[in-house]
Amino acid sequence: MDKKKNISMAVIKRLPKYYRYLGQLMKNDVDRISSKELSEKIGFTASQIRQDLNCFGDFGQQGYGYNVSELHNQIGNILGLTKPYKTVVVGAGNIGQAISNYTRFEKTGFNLDAIFDINPKLIGIRIRDIEIKDIDYLPNYLKENHIEIGIICVPANSAQKVCDILVKSGVKGIWNFAPVDLVIPDDVKVENVHLSDSLLTLTCLLNDGDIDNE
Amino acid sequence: MDKKKNISMAVIKRLPKYYRYLGQLMKNDVDRISSKELSEKIGFTASQIRQDLNCFGDFGQQGYGYNVSELHNQIGNILGLTKPYKTVVVGAGNIGQAISNYTRFEKTGFNLDAIFDINPKLIGIRIRDIEIKDIDYLPNYLKENHIEIGIICVPANSAQKVCDILVKSGVKGIWNFAPVDLVIPDDVKVENVHLSDSLLTLTCLLNDGDIDNE
Repeated sequence: MDKKKNISMAVIKRLPKYYRYLGQLMKNDVDRISSKELSEKIGFTASQIRQDLNCFGDFGQQGYGYNVSELHNQIGNILGLTKPYKTVVVGAGNIGQAISNYTRFEKTGFNLDAIFDINPKLIGIRIRDIEIKDIDYLPNYLKENHIEIGIICVPANSAQKVCDILVKSGVKGIWNFAPVDLVIPDDVKVENVHLSDSLLTLTCLLNDGDIDNE
Repeated sequence: MDKKKNISMAVIKRLPKYYRYLGQLMKNDVDRISSKELSEKIGFTASQIRQDLNCFGDFGQQGYGYNVSELHNQIGNILGLTKPYKTVVVGAGNIGQAISNYTRFEKTGFNLDAIFDINPKLIGIRIRDIEIKDIDYLPNYLKENHIEIGIICVPANSAQKVCDILVKSGVKGIWNFAPVDLVIPDDVKVENVHLSDSLLTLTCLLNDGDIDNE
């Protein structure tokens, strides 16, 4: 795993896609695949694929290609899917409820431990079997339950405040759906899902026929 | 606008963030800003900012900086926000309902015209004041109402089928929440929100302290 160090964000961002495609190949009982075949499926060039996967060790074999399940496993390891994660959702509005209801994540090892909101009308309601708790209990809950990932689904103007509580209580990973960029210390990682930015990217593409692809 | 041609996807992806920050500055009554100040707020380098904005024309003035509202307007134009867009949501599950309920998009000019689902239990239910329609009516609805953007919120295994209907019925922009990569013709644009990929990016970051930032 020594080669894992100093990989670029660009490579990191491509790994989940590899993982998804390899999982699909496994479902279809494909045992091995060449970088050329993988390239045709996934849309990266074969040389890009070889280069990406080389960052993490010597997976491929000349003339044989990649062992699909082995590569899937290894990428799963790099993605940190060797253990389950304890998560909480903060903000039980539209997006918070959708994420809380989305059982797909649990299958990959993400366990939703609790949901928090500030709205008295929502507190006490259950999403699946998880009761929405008063946000006042958030700091203690985080510490007592060793929560690793906080999912921020509150409005923009309270996102940083919620983030600060998460960070102060030892949460190291933040999945942020609020349309703001959070200020966090170096040892905390954040991944943003900025829906409005994504939608504006689409309209930009719609209004310009001459975009160079990356 | 001649300079708009041949801009890279990397620049396009940064534009919504500029737009968001400039909108915030306008709210705070900031009239002008230097690339250095903007850099401190937005987190791109000042030279990156000058380079990005240069792609679209000569916005900044030496010693004066950028006129905030002018730049906000210009970027809005480039993002295609000069007119409203007619959209439909296909798939009224968790994510589809969340997106349908999210009124923030309407403020930017995205009007949700209709919601479609295949599930008889959902058909007829209203989200805000919009009734969920039977997906059988989708092709005709799209053509009769000149829908420009289709928002795909169906499960992975039916996403391509829905995409094909959208494309065949003249939809040119697809905002895809299904965890698959869609096959589309060149004149159709797709923007993906792959939630699982995003979550796996976070765990990858959590498990590796030595990521090089882009």
